[in-house]
Amino acid sequence: MIRLADLDPRAPKSADKDKIKRATAKLVAHIGERQDRLFAQRQHSLLVVLQGMDASGKDGTARTVFGDVNPVGLHAVSFVKPTSEEMAHDFLWRVHRHAPAKGYIQLFIRSHYEDVLVQKVNGWIDADRARERYRAINAFERLLVKDAGTVIVKCFLHTSKEDQYKELRERLEDPTKQWKHNDGDWTERRRWNAYQSAYQTAINRTNTDEAPWTVVPADQAWYRNYIVAKAVADALDSLSLDYPRLPDETVQKFLAIKG
Amino acid sequence: MIRLADLDPRAPKSADKDKIKRATAKLVAHIGERQDRLFAQRQHSLLVVLQGMDASGKDGTARTVFGDVNPVGLHAVSFVKPTSEEMAHDFLWRVHRHAPAKGYIQLFIRSHYEDVLVQKVNGWIDADRARERYRAINAFERLLVKDAGTVIVKCFLHTSKEDQYKELRERLEDPTKQWKHNDGDWTERRRWNAYQSAYQTAINRTNTDEAPWTVVPADQAWYRNYIVAKAVADALDSLSLDYPRLPDETVQKFLAIKG
Repeated sequence: MIRLADLDPRAPKSADKDKIKRATAKLVAHIGERQDRLFAQRQHSLLVVLQGMDASGKDGTARTVFGDVNPVGLHAVSFVKPTSEEMAHDFLWRVHRHAPAKGYIQLFIRSHYEDVLVQKVNGWIDADRARERYRAINAFERLLVKDAGTVIVKCFLHTSKEDQYKELRERLEDPTKQWKHNDGDWTERRRWNAYQSAYQTAINRTNTDEAPWTVVPADQAWYRNYIVAKAVADALDSLSLDYPRLPDETVQKFLAIKG
Repeated sequence: MIRLADLDPRAPKSADKDKIKRATAKLVAHIGERQDRLFAQRQHSLLVVLQGMDASGKDGTARTVFGDVNPVGLHAVSFVKPTSEEMAHDFLWRVHRHAPAKGYIQLFIRSHYEDVLVQKVNGWIDADRARERYRAINAFERLLVKDAGTVIVKCFLHTSKEDQYKELRERLEDPTKQWKHNDGDWTERRRWNAYQSAYQTAINRTNTDEAPWTVVPADQAWYRNYIVAKAVADALDSLSLDYPRLPDETVQKFLAIKG
């Protein structure tokens, strides 16, 4: 059982910022190299889910961790308020179409988890419906893993209420960040504890062998990026991603062609 | 009138490789910075079309030029052989759904131009049909520019037949590149001149004010990346991309809230 209140949103005291940054740079390059193999091989795919409270750094994480990935092999989608067409379907309908094809990395900024978290905190669904949704999520994620060779990395960017305050104020004070301000973030913030509790339930109910959660200490960007990069690199390393080879006859046949 | 045979696929003798690489790095960072504004403002979008013969370096270009762009704001699509559903529609049907939404950069690796080039070289469409398609392309691109605030950058990666030979052989000799080998590339190569002529016609027919072509000397990756980065940066610079500001009352109202 994961208890968020027991987990520190800050980097361990022993972590050396410069060293961690160098390690992150290496992981980022490694992810780029592995993605080329993933794309070449077309046997597996990777789904990375980034969840976290408002201003927890989801976009910044994406930009750093996938900084060396060929954009052709990476799809990112940011799930916002569902459209009326999406609302007319089950909550996984809009998500399923973004499941990664073999060879691809798919990044979810927010995800199907919002449809349990937000809805539950707002009282739009009851406990039974929420339980049913967790069950559907587990079955859906298992389907991707078992039927499509997908590896799933789910990261909860664990931030403190104090850090969110700092970040939300920066969105008011920094003219290049004002576009990120949203009145609603300040309203939602009042329900911080309800969200933490909803996250804790969601994480525990969906922390499966097929698609486990990583709770990421995320108050400091440098440490957050490192932990997410590590989780993504480990997921890619769990696959044997050999480059497909050509038969020797083919190589010889075409090498014999003159320019 | 653009005549491909008169244009050198190599960098000018005067170009200094190290200097160009440093300039490219600056442009790449600039593109990242501008994309943040584009995304913040949601008034414009950017469509980048990369065309070129097989092994002309389209993927490599994408990886370098968009290396500093937030993946959330960038969609890349590689157009391959149309599916039977796509074939049952007009040739722009599958392309239109990938037109960039306001705030986004959309990258086309190959594009609607393939449906004139390949089809014409293979004799699957006649000159009348090809002309009709150029006309449709011009109307389509103009629609994006005029009705959706899109800026369009179209790059033809201009490579020599000798360079293609070198690149195709590398795909046989380098085990990490064998997955890129395609028997068909060697067959298509025999029709090099027919393709060059088809490209030249396509470029001249669709070199409009709204969506002009850049012919990129592309035999050397370092120079190719520079020219494409420059075209993309210039396109972004042609827009006034100010960060949206909040009204002062809003800023004051929310700054007054205690943590």
